[in-house]
Amino acid sequence: MKRRQFLRGAGAVGTVAAAAAMSSLPKPAIAQSMPSIKWRLASSFPKSLDTLYGGAEVFCNRVRSATDGKFDIAPHAAGQLVPPLQVMDGVQNKTIECGHTASYYYFGKDETFAFATAIPFGLNTRQMNAWMYQAGGNDLLNEFYKGYNIFHLPGGHTGAQMGGWFRREIKTPDDLKGLKMRIGGFAGRVMSKLGVVPQQIAGGDIYPALEKGTIDATEWVGPYDDEKLGFNKVAKYYYSPGWWEGCAMLSLMINIEEWNKLPKYYQSVVEAAAAEATNWMTSKYDAGNAPALKRLAQAGVEFREFPPAVMDACYAAAQELYKETNAKNANFKKVYDNYTAFQKDIVQWFQFAEGGFDRFMARRLRG
Amino acid sequence: MKRRQFLRGAGAVGTVAAAAAMSSLPKPAIAQSMPSIKWRLASSFPKSLDTLYGGAEVFCNRVRSATDGKFDIAPHAAGQLVPPLQVMDGVQNKTIECGHTASYYYFGKDETFAFATAIPFGLNTRQMNAWMYQAGGNDLLNEFYKGYNIFHLPGGHTGAQMGGWFRREIKTPDDLKGLKMRIGGFAGRVMSKLGVVPQQIAGGDIYPALEKGTIDATEWVGPYDDEKLGFNKVAKYYYSPGWWEGCAMLSLMINIEEWNKLPKYYQSVVEAAAAEATNWMTSKYDAGNAPALKRLAQAGVEFREFPPAVMDACYAAAQELYKETNAKNANFKKVYDNYTAFQKDIVQWFQFAEGGFDRFMARRLRG
Repeated sequence: MKRRQFLRGAGAVGTVAAAAAMSSLPKPAIAQSMPSIKWRLASSFPKSLDTLYGGAEVFCNRVRSATDGKFDIAPHAAGQLVPPLQVMDGVQNKTIECGHTASYYYFGKDETFAFATAIPFGLNTRQMNAWMYQAGGNDLLNEFYKGYNIFHLPGGHTGAQMGGWFRREIKTPDDLKGLKMRIGGFAGRVMSKLGVVPQQIAGGDIYPALEKGTIDATEWVGPYDDEKLGFNKVAKYYYSPGWWEGCAMLSLMINIEEWNKLPKYYQSVVEAAAAEATNWMTSKYDAGNAPALKRLAQAGVEFREFPPAVMDACYAAAQELYKETNAKNANFKKVYDNYTAFQKDIVQWFQFAEGGFDRFMARRLRG
Repeated sequence: MKRRQFLRGAGAVGTVAAAAAMSSLPKPAIAQSMPSIKWRLASSFPKSLDTLYGGAEVFCNRVRSATDGKFDIAPHAAGQLVPPLQVMDGVQNKTIECGHTASYYYFGKDETFAFATAIPFGLNTRQMNAWMYQAGGNDLLNEFYKGYNIFHLPGGHTGAQMGGWFRREIKTPDDLKGLKMRIGGFAGRVMSKLGVVPQQIAGGDIYPALEKGTIDATEWVGPYDDEKLGFNKVAKYYYSPGWWEGCAMLSLMINIEEWNKLPKYYQSVVEAAAAEATNWMTSKYDAGNAPALKRLAQAGVEFREFPPAVMDACYAAAQELYKETNAKNANFKKVYDNYTAFQKDIVQWFQFAEGGFDRFMARRLRG
């Protein structure tokens, strides 16, 4: 069985060396060889984002070091192998063995892709991990990804995102009407219902658009990443929370045939490394956002919360979108029903010990 | 170099097989053998706690599967190898290669042991991960653990704990005076300052003590674990939050000589598996606590929050204890200064995107 797995692994990939040597050993189960396997990973993110791209590096480094260099997954930055928003397609078509991306980039093909990253007013980071790892969430999503030749694993988290940068204050839902805002994907559909004109603009082009007034607002991630892009110099108000991304999970997508060819213990290493990268990225963001927020405050940024009436209007628009999407997309509805049933109970629980503790500490340590 | 590492690994442990076979191979770097290594892990927890003991199982299973069964760490439940509250000592003395325990059990030897689990009014779960993994927290603690022959890795989280079960309501700080409460370790010292008489009682003996009125209150963990112990049948009020455990991290403690003897790629597997177990246990608790809370509510439990005046009195008592401990324990002060400086900024940040998002969702999804 071990031998058969090994040989299947050998056929799968570029460099394999040990098979011949193995066959002359009397006890292969004892003097087990580790096959040399080389994969390429395409990231949707540039190297400058040491959070998002960094998650893929952490994953690849761990797989390499845990296999004594034998299973070597080389990470490639956005655009090096495939266009950044076509990483999923590259994995599906086996152009690349695996990719690290945000699943919601592909919601145009099927809205169900949104769940593995974030849906508006969805689960927070820990709730998402609980659903994915413990409540069958990832298994449910893998039923869907199978149709795209993909095996899916969680691959990082940004944490709850900020609501973005606005050139003027948002005091009522009416202030959203006609607002030109750079906002990604599925959340743009909710914003549209409120009169926002959503804009799809790549990261590097947002700053000049905001500076010239081509757009009135933009969302990106949070203090640590946003500070790098300098948005505070061209928009005064920094809003929270980003209700469209209470968490944003990253996805490790692996071509399912390549996955099935791996020896079981390499599959095991991949699962552990992906879980570690998920944990790592969350902590990387949390540790980086805190001092970045402080620096932004010192630079004169005006922090605002979306007023309750604005939040409620957005919530209502999101529910309307879910109703429409559930009516026309059975894949979406299947996951949505499972996800929201889980959400209802876990949100209640988080208000007890976690919420009570966090609220008290915030009051005592207020700056 | 690889060969030398391998041979050192071979000397370290019980069963090693491949060395002789290896030496006859012309290219050891290609036909790399994985040495067979067997370790024993002692847990401080009984098997019935599939959360706490479960974390050790997840860790051991991953190490085994990621090394094709070659690195086999056998988990042992509380008391099987060493007394449950002497797991650290067993690792220190090399009675066992590694242990899974709560570091604060050993605060009697040095208060610095408390940090790796929880200190009253300390970091929450994600903040703790950020400090440990990204801000040098674990490195700082390893300087301390080195004095006990221990290499330390995070090994799980319970999340913020509940404030426990009380037979009568706590309305003012005066209601704490003379209260006999089962509460562990370092937090007991804070409680003492408020007039509580802390009791050290093992898990299985708490229920009868509470039933007979030998004690007036007890804390344990949270809904999922507490429900198993049936406390709701003998105490009416369930308080939140457990300000003494805003997170409670579990520790993987490894004898440092055994650690140093491992091949580097086995060390790498251990690090990944420990990080995964940390993530796993958090999600296990989060997913389990939500429905357990609902069942407890249906069983008639009365939920209460500690009133602000009680929380403030506890906070003041904790600060007094920190001042005293810092004055007499330089190890403690070194970690405390680093930990609290980190805490001040990150608590602020968590009130923006995370706090704002969670508060809104709690309002919308209120049961």
